[in-house]
Amino acid sequence: MDQVFLCDVGPRDGLQNQATLLSVQQRLQLVDGLLQAGVPLVEAGAMVSPKAVPAMAGSDELLLALADVKSRLQVLIPNARGYQLARDAGAENVVAVICASNTMNQKNVRMDTLDSLTQISQIQQQALADKVRLQACIAVAWECPFEGRTPIAAVMSLAAQLYECGIRHINIADTIGAANPKAVKDLMQPLVRGFYDVTFTCHFHDTRAMGLANAFAAYEAGVKHFDASVGGLGGCPFAPGATGNVASEDLVMMFEQMGVSTGIDLEQLMVVGQLAGDFTEQPTGGRAHKWRMLQLEKGRTLC
Amino acid sequence: MDQVFLCDVGPRDGLQNQATLLSVQQRLQLVDGLLQAGVPLVEAGAMVSPKAVPAMAGSDELLLALADVKSRLQVLIPNARGYQLARDAGAENVVAVICASNTMNQKNVRMDTLDSLTQISQIQQQALADKVRLQACIAVAWECPFEGRTPIAAVMSLAAQLYECGIRHINIADTIGAANPKAVKDLMQPLVRGFYDVTFTCHFHDTRAMGLANAFAAYEAGVKHFDASVGGLGGCPFAPGATGNVASEDLVMMFEQMGVSTGIDLEQLMVVGQLAGDFTEQPTGGRAHKWRMLQLEKGRTLC
Repeated sequence: MDQVFLCDVGPRDGLQNQATLLSVQQRLQLVDGLLQAGVPLVEAGAMVSPKAVPAMAGSDELLLALADVKSRLQVLIPNARGYQLARDAGAENVVAVICASNTMNQKNVRMDTLDSLTQISQIQQQALADKVRLQACIAVAWECPFEGRTPIAAVMSLAAQLYECGIRHINIADTIGAANPKAVKDLMQPLVRGFYDVTFTCHFHDTRAMGLANAFAAYEAGVKHFDASVGGLGGCPFAPGATGNVASEDLVMMFEQMGVSTGIDLEQLMVVGQLAGDFTEQPTGGRAHKWRMLQLEKGRTLC
Repeated sequence: MDQVFLCDVGPRDGLQNQATLLSVQQRLQLVDGLLQAGVPLVEAGAMVSPKAVPAMAGSDELLLALADVKSRLQVLIPNARGYQLARDAGAENVVAVICASNTMNQKNVRMDTLDSLTQISQIQQQALADKVRLQACIAVAWECPFEGRTPIAAVMSLAAQLYECGIRHINIADTIGAANPKAVKDLMQPLVRGFYDVTFTCHFHDTRAMGLANAFAAYEAGVKHFDASVGGLGGCPFAPGATGNVASEDLVMMFEQMGVSTGIDLEQLMVVGQLAGDFTEQPTGGRAHKWRMLQLEKGRTLC
């Protein structure tokens, strides 16, 4: 049976843009619920300044509390300092972000894209020595809110430079939810074919309802790894106009109905989605959830 | 430039499942707004029993009032009697429905699928004489709420029989919104390739958020005609669990962003969507609309 692999980024991407700040205890509950539902990998936090992103404060504490499942956790880092903090908290999987547009990179991590690249190269050397798996995430890979459409060549070139650094897992992120399925195919096909020994993850936001269409287009191009956020939580504090990630529930429902295994229990995942909604005081964004409510109302079981 | 052709079925499929009944005057306003926005074809009504579907009462009156644009209007008919009523009201484009499952056909039009086929064959002869364009719609083409998954062979066989009747425009309808993009490709590819001189329309409901993904999959399979409903209105009174059609706004946004022309003014279409929401006292279901509201809030123009 064909398989795809989900990383739930709800506890990071989902929570960082919420008005309500969650306690470390609540975040632990969410991460634990996701792992219990069978989500293979959970982005549990970010090693960023608590002043800039208060929602991510205490990510080290959270990692330490989850030491026994750390192989299934991932942490986002903006720079070399973030890497050290993540490693010291016992992280085994880290994601370093770099933006395809220089303006966005400046807004995001206050340095030029080239400087981020130099740092990622150094982090990669250190990660090899530390036996930490490093993924690089190319943000605003389709469109930047400041610079407009991102040229395919810019992403290909950045991917090639990351490859030269030794990176073999690259995340292609539609940070603001501006990609369309044709653009996804146009970018992901040459990436997957060109870098055949690289694992590509796609990260979509559902801003314009195209999250699932984009995921299908990426899958058709050969992508097997997807980021998603339980309950469709999400956004980016520095990218105006971005709304929630594509909901994990929706992705799981689509792939499972296509006969593609995710290894995730959809019913259990939806319970975590409700918990996320309760904690953040935000309605859950996924459509799978609404459909489930409709079925339950009518006394039907899920098919 | 590549093109797709939308038929807005909001004034028929959209309204027939609403709690609020609209006046013929309100329905006229919706149809007129859609035509003004550049929608090439509008399904303006249905020639069905006003007792069974009160929302469609007065469809003949509506057609007569729109006599000067009747080439851009379409009417749904359940049987031969419906055809006569449609023709007498001046309809130039009619759609006859037939269900891929016998149980659904019984629930929908109180006869067996085979009897519907016989009627459609007779209607087609009459339509040729009347110079009326007849489209046949195969409902529950992917899944029936009563019989479960529809075998591909059942739809292929029904399409072949319709072809034998002389039908050259077939609508493949996911009446309850249970299709997934892989299933869409698996069905539409052999249909498009097998019946190369038939125009296929795909009709998707967004029940499980896969409307756009399914439309993209159909487009990839060679489909250029799509049904959609302004504001995502919709449902089917006889198919439990069905919710709204995929929103016309969302389809237009996706295709236009893919560089595929629809000929429709998205801004104007959204205004009609709001009107539909006001008339039906239902929140508009399309995501494009929510995205637009977000942009307007932030003082941005649409891109």
